[in-house]
Amino acid sequence: MKDLPLSKVYQLLEPGPVVLLTTAYKGRANVMAISWHMMVEFEPPLVACVVSDANYSFAALRATKQCVIAIPALKLAPKAAAVGNCSGRKVDKFKAFGLTRVPAERVSPPLIAECFANLECRVADTRLANKFNLFVLEVLKAWIDRTQKDPKTIHHHGHGRFAVDGEMIRLKSGKP
Amino acid sequence: MKDLPLSKVYQLLEPGPVVLLTTAYKGRANVMAISWHMMVEFEPPLVACVVSDANYSFAALRATKQCVIAIPALKLAPKAAAVGNCSGRKVDKFKAFGLTRVPAERVSPPLIAECFANLECRVADTRLANKFNLFVLEVLKAWIDRTQKDPKTIHHHGHGRFAVDGEMIRLKSGKP
Repeated sequence: MKDLPLSKVYQLLEPGPVVLLTTAYKGRANVMAISWHMMVEFEPPLVACVVSDANYSFAALRATKQCVIAIPALKLAPKAAAVGNCSGRKVDKFKAFGLTRVPAERVSPPLIAECFANLECRVADTRLANKFNLFVLEVLKAWIDRTQKDPKTIHHHGHGRFAVDGEMIRLKSGKP
Repeated sequence: MKDLPLSKVYQLLEPGPVVLLTTAYKGRANVMAISWHMMVEFEPPLVACVVSDANYSFAALRATKQCVIAIPALKLAPKAAAVGNCSGRKVDKFKAFGLTRVPAERVSPPLIAECFANLECRVADTRLANKFNLFVLEVLKAWIDRTQKDPKTIHHHGHGRFAVDGEMIRLKSGKP
């Protein structure tokens, strides 16, 4: 995995892919799947996400204020869905689904080797965590696996239906 | 346009499409394009979005606490991009791009007839508006145009590159 400039992070998350979120708490790493995330600022990149307090990851994120957002391409989609279907309370999901932990550089939660992008994050704001389970994250370091060429991501439409990235089009734009 | 149950709203926004956001302020409606939005709660549906304070819509949203999120399908993509490329300070974008205003039921900003879904929203939380331009919205009423069959949405990858929804796949899921 190579460095990705922080100025390019928004291009990965703005399209709305299903992502994996890793945490590490009390000596144990965990991973969950989320679609409820959005960009908040370009650079330094800020990302908002919702992690339900019904999820095992919620306490880890709130206590440690660190996570990694890992982005799976289509070939990982069945594993990403499987990660979303069980709780880290009962299962070591890395082991159960064959996901490889890689040490991060700036945070304790692990990167995921099989994902084409990994974003090391710290929690930057928790004012909406109690009421809405909403965290604002700052991306401290971003990694890209350029051996995964032209990765297609998946987008959840509910109840296990996912749209895969299709045709790429270009439209006139003066915006980043 | 027909009623869409509020319980299904997340299925429209969770995939991360480019959306249009209408406001109405001082007797004048405006529309902008955004990709920085996410679901926050299923029902009543809560949605977070970022509207930059550099945008003309920011003051309208903050003052009136109302907006409509309108979702364009692929055929509207060039207009959606054009909406994103100019400011309502100078242009009546509905007129300039041939978008048809339809009165909403619960809020003052208009629906957009050409969009396949329209969500009438009130601002539910502004605690992160000053620091992050982040608003939490509650969807009060949702509309769907079922004559637009199987609408494909667009997802912004930066600098005018958009991924169009491709193949739909099904994966085993116990989640909504």
